[in-house]
Amino acid sequence: MSGRLAVVGLGPGDARWLTREAEAAIAAAAALYGYGPYLDRVPSRPGQARHPSDNREEAARAAAALRHAAEGASVAVVSGGDPGVFAMAAAVCAEIEAGPQAWRTLDVVIVPGVTAMLAVAARAGAPLGHDFCALSLSDNLKPWELIERRLDAAAGVGFVIALYNPISRARPWQLGAAFERLRQRLPASTPVMFGRAVGRPDENVVVTTLEGADPATADMATLIIVGSSETRAIARPGRAPLVYTPRAVQGASA
Amino acid sequence: MSGRLAVVGLGPGDARWLTREAEAAIAAAAALYGYGPYLDRVPSRPGQARHPSDNREEAARAAAALRHAAEGASVAVVSGGDPGVFAMAAAVCAEIEAGPQAWRTLDVVIVPGVTAMLAVAARAGAPLGHDFCALSLSDNLKPWELIERRLDAAAGVGFVIALYNPISRARPWQLGAAFERLRQRLPASTPVMFGRAVGRPDENVVVTTLEGADPATADMATLIIVGSSETRAIARPGRAPLVYTPRAVQGASA
Repeated sequence: MSGRLAVVGLGPGDARWLTREAEAAIAAAAALYGYGPYLDRVPSRPGQARHPSDNREEAARAAAALRHAAEGASVAVVSGGDPGVFAMAAAVCAEIEAGPQAWRTLDVVIVPGVTAMLAVAARAGAPLGHDFCALSLSDNLKPWELIERRLDAAAGVGFVIALYNPISRARPWQLGAAFERLRQRLPASTPVMFGRAVGRPDENVVVTTLEGADPATADMATLIIVGSSETRAIARPGRAPLVYTPRAVQGASA
Repeated sequence: MSGRLAVVGLGPGDARWLTREAEAAIAAAAALYGYGPYLDRVPSRPGQARHPSDNREEAARAAAALRHAAEGASVAVVSGGDPGVFAMAAAVCAEIEAGPQAWRTLDVVIVPGVTAMLAVAARAGAPLGHDFCALSLSDNLKPWELIERRLDAAAGVGFVIALYNPISRARPWQLGAAFERLRQRLPASTPVMFGRAVGRPDENVVVTTLEGADPATADMATLIIVGSSETRAIARPGRAPLVYTPRAVQGASA
């Protein structure tokens, strides 16, 4: 069996953050699978089949792509951002583990991409310049109480925090609760960045403080970065402030 | 003043992980600054000045590039991986904050890239598929005691841990101490991945367990990922195991 499955990160936004490897992996595939809006970002090629699916169908999409690859085809699953960060690569691995033994013999290649927090950080300055964590705020797949413990721990030891999946229609209150929680452990002046649709024409980046952070600023296309107590905003005339977290912790010798 | 400074992420390894935006930013620059081996990865263009410098001269390199841009030039500082993750973007921001007011009027653009942990994760499967943190193990710029507290907190609440700067000639014992610390909080069978020089001809990825993790496997070009108690390794006939962290925490309803 010569089937091949590539799980390809497109980066956030438009094609500017596509890597050469991702372009090559997409071009080489006989069939593409993915969430519809991500597939729409990939130019079509004659003879290449396209199988769009809905946002919440990761497991079914992964299984369909694996079945197709197991027939001997070269298949690519496209993913926004990096496929390994809260995205399709883990869904594909889970299906391989649960599926027929033959799936374990497939050639599986993960093609990394620029994940959303890196693109939002780049727009703001360098808020991830020191130790940080990435946390999905969705309590669909884990208990909310665990998310609270992770927020407390991260803020308590000085990790900058990138929040993925901050809000949705089905999860309207969680982001506000997270900000409240963080306000108990971090200074009111801590920089907070909302990056919406970064790299797309409707991109919007808002830099505020933890005190001023309004959950209504976020939607499903938003990635949020909450600084640590070390994160700083440099005022610039006529420009947005430049937010960064110094590499050195204050008081440490260089 | 029309000076422009781009801080450009090359991704790890060779050109496969270069983005279109990074290629364009490098091509547009009149002068390039960077650590010598990173500059060597960028093809030379007639008329484009190149200013290589040593590994530990981040602050001086950032200041030199800013001075050059402040003369009205279009300058790029190249960085391995993503410039915002333990790399040049924070160094540039720090120099802007400390430098002359005129530097705050420069057009500063950060071009994100694939950071090492994403590339290593892609090689192993999807170990970063659930909440994770990125921690520099260098105690040059922060106290070792703080690193210990971060390791304890991260392992204690179930973050997968990516370790940057795990070891060097000047810091020979820290990685072993970190593994010892993590063994007190995580199962002996926790998957550990060493990714050395990923994307380069001498790439080497080793998948082992926390019990078997040997600091001697790492060098300065290595990125290490330590799983959480949820991280799993799928055995595959004739292939390396596929390591992933499920999106759902066990016991949580989907």
